[in-house]
Parts: sequence; structure tokens; C-alpha cells
Amino acid sequence: MQTQSTRATRRGRRKRNSQRDASLPAACHKRGMPAYELLDETALVRLEQHADWLLENVGVEFRGDSVALDLFHQAGAHIEGERVRFKNGLARHLCATAPTEFKLHSRNTNHSITLGGEHFVLMPGYGSPFVTDLDNGRRYATLEDFRNFVKLSYITPYLHHSGGTICEPTDVPVNKRHLDMVYAHLQLSTKPFMGGVTSVARARDSIDMARIVYGAEFMETHAVMQGNINVNSPFVYDETMSGALRVYAEANQCVCVSPAIFGGAMGPVTMAAVSAQTLAEGMAGICLAQLVRPGCPVMLGSFHSTMNLRTGSLTFGTPESTHATMMISQLGRRLGVPVRSGGGQITASNAPDGQAMMDSTSAMWSTLISGSHQVWHAAGWLEGGLTMSYEKFIMDLDNCGAMMKMLQGLSVDDESLSRESYREAGPGENFLSTTHTIKHFATANYESLLPDAGPYETWTENGSLRADQRATKVYKKLLSEYSPPPIDDSINQSLIEFIDERKSAMPDEWY
Amino acid sequence: MQTQSTRATRRGRRKRNSQRDASLPAACHKRGMPAYELLDETALVRLEQHADWLLENVGVEFRGDSVALDLFHQAGAHIEGERVRFKNGLARHLCATAPTEFKLHSRNTNHSITLGGEHFVLMPGYGSPFVTDLDNGRRYATLEDFRNFVKLSYITPYLHHSGGTICEPTDVPVNKRHLDMVYAHLQLSTKPFMGGVTSVARARDSIDMARIVYGAEFMETHAVMQGNINVNSPFVYDETMSGALRVYAEANQCVCVSPAIFGGAMGPVTMAAVSAQTLAEGMAGICLAQLVRPGCPVMLGSFHSTMNLRTGSLTFGTPESTHATMMISQLGRRLGVPVRSGGGQITASNAPDGQAMMDSTSAMWSTLISGSHQVWHAAGWLEGGLTMSYEKFIMDLDNCGAMMKMLQGLSVDDESLSRESYREAGPGENFLSTTHTIKHFATANYESLLPDAGPYETWTENGSLRADQRATKVYKKLLSEYSPPPIDDSINQSLIEFIDERKSAMPDEWY
Repeated sequence: MQTQSTRATRRGRRKRNSQRDASLPAACHKRGMPAYELLDETALVRLEQHADWLLENVGVEFRGDSVALDLFHQAGAHIEGERVRFKNGLARHLCATAPTEFKLHSRNTNHSITLGGEHFVLMPGYGSPFVTDLDNGRRYATLEDFRNFVKLSYITPYLHHSGGTICEPTDVPVNKRHLDMVYAHLQLSTKPFMGGVTSVARARDSIDMARIVYGAEFMETHAVMQGNINVNSPFVYDETMSGALRVYAEANQCVCVSPAIFGGAMGPVTMAAVSAQTLAEGMAGICLAQLVRPGCPVMLGSFHSTMNLRTGSLTFGTPESTHATMMISQLGRRLGVPVRSGGGQITASNAPDGQAMMDSTSAMWSTLISGSHQVWHAAGWLEGGLTMSYEKFIMDLDNCGAMMKMLQGLSVDDESLSRESYREAGPGENFLSTTHTIKHFATANYESLLPDAGPYETWTENGSLRADQRATKVYKKLLSEYSPPPIDDSINQSLIEFIDERKSAMPDEWY
Repeated sequence: MQTQSTRATRRGRRKRNSQRDASLPAACHKRGMPAYELLDETALVRLEQHADWLLENVGVEFRGDSVALDLFHQAGAHIEGERVRFKNGLARHLCATAPTEFKLHSRNTNHSITLGGEHFVLMPGYGSPFVTDLDNGRRYATLEDFRNFVKLSYITPYLHHSGGTICEPTDVPVNKRHLDMVYAHLQLSTKPFMGGVTSVARARDSIDMARIVYGAEFMETHAVMQGNINVNSPFVYDETMSGALRVYAEANQCVCVSPAIFGGAMGPVTMAAVSAQTLAEGMAGICLAQLVRPGCPVMLGSFHSTMNLRTGSLTFGTPESTHATMMISQLGRRLGVPVRSGGGQITASNAPDGQAMMDSTSAMWSTLISGSHQVWHAAGWLEGGLTMSYEKFIMDLDNCGAMMKMLQGLSVDDESLSRESYREAGPGENFLSTTHTIKHFATANYESLLPDAGPYETWTENGSLRADQRATKVYKKLLSEYSPPPIDDSINQSLIEFIDERKSAMPDEWY
């Protein structure tokens, strides 16, 4: 399936360049392999009971958001100041109106994706203030970098989603960045995307812009975008986040609630506790979304990791954090909402080197094998998220492609067992020219995105290039091949006018 | 547990240098996580039926080994020339005397390991003619390199086994290498090891040397070593391999039968076929071992991979090969014998770069998550096995350590959920100084073997060293800290005399 898609892509490159990946993701984001279950029923129930205990005994603060507090009060929660406590499984009960599975729609229907069930959605990194590439080194990210990563995310068949703040466009005033970013997602890509959340107004702007493209009426009943609501873990939602949460929920757009817990800092150092706390904090946000608009699409997110508690540095792809990733996947699926995993291709490494790919590959395996539905930071991340690397983006895409192929599983049937091959090639003979090999050789195996380095002698003749060095060519080639998807001129004009109007209504703010 | 072991190691370094890792592997090679089941019962039965079909209709050739053919004939197999065919599940029936689980014993009882059940055993790479390090580049391996890797495998807590031909000591005549290699394993290490198999005489020499250390009587009933029997896939055992197999089986030492199938060359290109064929070819060898000595310890091995069928180059860590790794683990466990996985930390990359670690980590995950019992090539492999890299050895060890920690699973209990922590730290507060964090911070998380690179600024001040460059220091430090385990002087003298005698009895052969 993957290979057919790749072939479709190639055909597209020649015949209809602007829609080259039009046929891809919908077909490729459903797993054919069962999810791995790390914990058994007893342990899972224990974690759920602990989450309920936390919600009843610790509770969650919604700071500065009287609307939220009123909603919780009306729903039967116990309010004390800004602290909300949920007795007797009330939180789980309030989460029950959330859909188990829903779509994020695209104007290119082949880019519409499903969140939940057996689907998985891969996305680029999120939130880096820096970018790096081997030619120019590390520097503050600009809008051009942001647009480049939107283009790369669009052109690759190995990401299903355009992401959000892939990197910070630091050359744009802070209060206007969301306009340029959402415009890039809408203009340069047709893949679903994330809007602004850093203020209620920015969340509204983002949704208004999407409405220009998709129509307000359509979006009343169809999600086309999502907002990322970070919890100020432990147990605090600030008014910016709960305000933005309510904006997305009211608009029936996807709310992803992401507790951010580094074991030992925002929660206990043990991953069992981190996982239960993630569930508790996440449920509180999901409850709020469901109280705002019952049935609106939500996700249980997570951003968790370990720390080196001697040095204070964050560590990623560690064995303990893989446990948390796998547990949270199980807990979210049991809650009945799609799970945005705290895994992805994440690393603390400063360079796209062996450590970076070791960390990233381990984190990605735990994410995908455990049945997570959405994977942020699937491409580009370095330095614990401080930097998006162009070269690592390509190496990560290669891993995404391989993992997508793997997750499709395999068939055990007459065709794959191929008895007739053994009638053509007997003991000691080779299968290179059997009918079956000739029929399948071009499509049987995933083909790496990185150019084949060849054997050692060829490799040294060609300059002994490491994988990251070979990746430089690839991102440049992809960018040179990029062309934007079609967009109606009048819609594009309306978007530009909306942005101009909003920008001119505000003085620049740089903090 | 991992961390306790690491602490024991540190203590040992100060107090009793020569036995620093004495307390380790036995405790650390049992998994606390369930094995991942890729295929369901229906698909597995289909593969097993296909293996039976292959054994009945294609059969396996035992070339030049009339003893083997006689044994098969007496057992009811159908013999036609050198072709052996097994009707009606005969092969599976003959495999039934093989033990499901057994020990490889060490003279340091803490290094004795169990193969089978929930245990996993990690080993260094095998068979590379070249070695490489960043100081000296790539060159033919020597006996000194071989001894270095035995020392590194001994000193690390993250390998359980000394391996076999870790690299080829190319400065020693071909017909005498086994003597120097087995001596290194016995003298420099107390971890279980693999003996020579490249001729019947070399297999006998290897076992005779082990008997000098462990005693012939003990070895009659206890395995201390293993021999690797490569199948000349498809469906051929040559007389060297079946001869060596019989020597190890007669001596009650572990026989690991390893079909070597690259999809599209030695079998069909589809991994379902490769897996069933591996089972079929492996069962034939296991049958022979059981006919030679019913109940002798055997393993189902595998060396499988994909090829780029456009260029003919072998590829490793690919999504298709991970499928095969996971299927063969399932098939072997169902057969009731320990499984040596075709995975490990394998890659076609020429450098210890991002691709190397991406391939290696993916292959390693599929190997370990699927419940394989023994992992060859867990450290050092580059270039599809042509080269052992000192730096990659260290990076791989780091991954082994992390995976070992992960595989131990985690506890969900009062201590790990730590309700009392939440009484000390409430919403918005941090957990850095809670009693629970202080109690656990030093042991909660796996600590990387690679020196922490620090944040970007520190890293650049220190020369922007990639992970492989930081690994150079580590292998040098480990080698400088190595000291050999105690060995009785008279036993050592007997080993040296045995070797001298055997060497002087043969002219050098260099091919």
C-alpha cells in the first residue's frame, strides 16, 4: 500500500505536480498490527483509580476562568476558590460524551484524516525557537523557515498533518505570528493543522481564518483543525489555556489537552505516577470541553519525559519515558478518546547524530507500537525541542515512512507464501529470477528516502557522507519540487485581507 | 534493578576491580514486559502448516553427511539421494525432545544465563573481517581487536554473553584462529561463549578447551558454550555445518541453527515466506541435533534481511525485516525452543551515524519486544556486518542498557504511585524536593553510558562532539579499566599447552 502510494506520488510529480500527494494519507494511516499492551487489567485499573483519587483529593485549579468554574459547579464538581474537585468518578462520567473517533477534514478529501480507532497521524515538530541546517548552522527561526517546514510536511507522503507552530517565526511580532502561521498552513498545504492558542483572540482569529476557507456552516459540524491546550502541570490550567480551550470547543474544533509532566519536577519521579497524573489532568480539560459543547472532538495529549536529576537536564527516548508513553496510550484508549502521544521522534541531542536517532527511534517505537493515535514531533526535533533541524527532518521522515510501512502489517496468504516459488527454485538455488520475485521486487520493500550510500568503497569515493550529510540534498530537492495546492483566488484574497486588517488593528508586540 | 547493578559495578570498580560485574547479568536478563504478538493464531498456524509443507515437498539436503542421512532414515524421514523429506509433521515431532529452557553455565555463577522462557541474552556482533575506530579508521581486524572486544563484552553490564567470532583475527592463520578465540573467551571473560564451527576438528578443539576449564564430566550434563550452525539456505546443510552440529550435540553443548535468508535471494521476497522457510530449515537442524542426542540444548536461530532488489545491496532494520523478526520469535516460542533472533543492532550504514542507530534501534526493538531469547549483533555492527566499530559498540551498549531497563517493566503500586508526594506538592508546585523524589532520584532512571553533552552552549564550547565522537573516550576508558577474571594457573597452563600442541601439529593455512 505504501509502495503503491509512492508510485502514485511519482506519477503525480510528472503529470500534476501541484497535487502530487493528493492520493496518499487516508490510505496509509490505518494500522494493520495490534497495539502492544504493556500493562494488564489490574495495573490499568489501579492507575485509573489513582487518577480518580487525584481528581477527588488534589483537584485541578482553573485560574482566572470564572466561566469554567461555573460550568464545573453546575456539573456537580466541588469548587473551592479556583480548585475543582471531582468525586466518585464524576470526571470520567463527564468525559463520556467525547467521541471515540472523529475526522479532521481537508479541502483535499484525500488529506482528511481520522483520529482514534486503528488510525495514526504523524505530524512535524512543534514550538522550536531555533532551526539548524548543516550549511548555515543554528539560528533563530524565521517565517521563511516556518513556511519551508509547512512545505516539506505537505510534500512528504510520510506526514499526515501540517502541525502547528512547527518553529517560531521569530521575525514576526509575537501577537501577529498566529496569523502568518495559520495562513501558511491554509495556503501552502491542504493537510489538517493546528491554530493559535496563546490567547483567546488568537484562537478566534485562527478559527475565523479556517472559516474563510471551509465555511462557517461546514465547520459547525466538521472539525478541520485543532488547538493544543497545555496544562501548567501539576494540576493548573491558566486562563489563557482554558480560555483557548473553550474557544475551540465552542467552535466544534478539536481540543487536544496536553499535561506536561517531567518526572520529579511536575510530578513524582516514577512513571506510574506520571501516567496517572497525566490522565487526571487531561480528564479535567476534556470535561471542560464537553461541558462547553457536549460531543465536541477532544484528545488526551501528553508531554512527559524523564530528567537527569543530578544535572537537571531533560532526557528523551529513555526507557522510563517509553513506559509512560505506552501506559498513557492504554489509558487514553480505555477512556475512549484519541491519544496524542508524548513520544514522537524526540531527543536531547544537539546534533542529528547517532544519539539523536537512537533516542528518536526508541521514542517512536513506543509511541506507535502502543497504539497512540497522533504523534507530534514525528520529524525535525533536536535539543529537547529547542531546534528544528532540516536534516533531522529528512532522517525522521525516513523513519516515519518505514514505520508506516511496518504498521500496515502483512498478509499471510497464498500469494505471500508462494508455494510456486519453491517449485521454481529448489535447495541451493536462488530466488532472484522466480516469477514471484520478479512480480514483487519493485514494491515488496520500503525504499529509504536517504540516498543509498553504497558499499564502503563507493561511499568513501563519494566523500564518506554521514546520513545527516546525505539528508541535506534531500530537503533541498523536496523544497525545489514543492508547488502549492490550488486555492480559490477570492478565498486567498479574503485571507490576506483578514490578516491585514487584524495586523493593522494591533501594535507590534515582541514579548 | 538496573540502577542497583550499575551502582554495584561502581562500587566494584573501587573495591574489587577484577570482579566488578560479577553480580550482574543473572538478575538483569529476565523480562517484566509481555512479548508482543504480531500475528494471531490463524496466521501462525498457516505459517506452521507452510513450514510442514516445505519439509514434506521440498525437503532439506544434508550434503556429504551419511551419518546424518542414516539418522534421518532411521527416524522415518524419506531420503532420496541427499534430500531429506519429513511427512505429516514428523519434523515437529522429532523436535519435541528439545528443552524449552536451559542454562549456559559460567565458572562465575553470576554469569550463568538462562536461554528460553522470559529471559533475553545480549551478545556482541559476530563475524566481521574489519574493525574501525575514529582514530585509526577501517582496517582488517587482528587478534588484538578480537581480545579488545572480548574485554569490552566482559566489562560491560549490558551484554550477557561473550559472543563468538566477534571479529576475524585476520593476523592468525585461518586453521588456528579458533584456538586463540576460544582461549580469549575462556581467559579474558567468564561469560558464556561460542566455539568454532568451521570444521569438525575445530568444533572438537573448542569443546576440548572448554572441558579443560569446566571439566568433561560437568559438561556431560551442563552446557557452557554454544555453536552456531549456519544453514546454506535455501534448504542445504553442508557437511562442515552438519558435522559441527553433531559434535556440539554429542557433547551436550548448545546448538544454534541459523537459516540465513535474504528475501528474494535465498527465499521468496515476502517475509511470511521467509519466516516459514526459516522455521522449516531450522527444524531440520534441530531434528538432527535431537537424533544425535535427545534432549540436548538447541535454539532456533535466524539471519534474515531484506535486499534492495534494484541494487542488490542488503538492507537492515527495515520494516519488512522487523516483521520477520517478530514472526520468527513467535514461531520459535510455539515450537518450544529458545529463539536466537535475526535482529540485533544491525545496519548497512558505513559509519556510526544517524542511519546506523535508526536501523539498529528499530531492529533491536522488534527483536526484544517480540520475546526473542538471544540477540546476536547487539553491539558494534556496521556495514551489514563487515565491520565492528569501537564507537558503535559503545553507542549500542548504551541502547542495550536502556532496553534492559525497559524490559524489566515497572511496578504499579503504592510506592510508585506515591500518594504522599501529592500531599507535599500541590497544584502549581514542584516535586523536586518531595521525600519521594529525594528517595528515588538517584536510581529511578537509566543513566546513559555516553557522557551528557549538556545544553547547546556547553556542547559547542566542548567542541560540538557527535555521539560517536563522545563514544571514543568511553571505549578507551573501559579498556583501561579492564582486568581479567581470576583463572587457576594450572588450568591456564593446560589451555596454553593444548593450543601450542594443536598449533604445532598443523601447518598454517591462510584460506
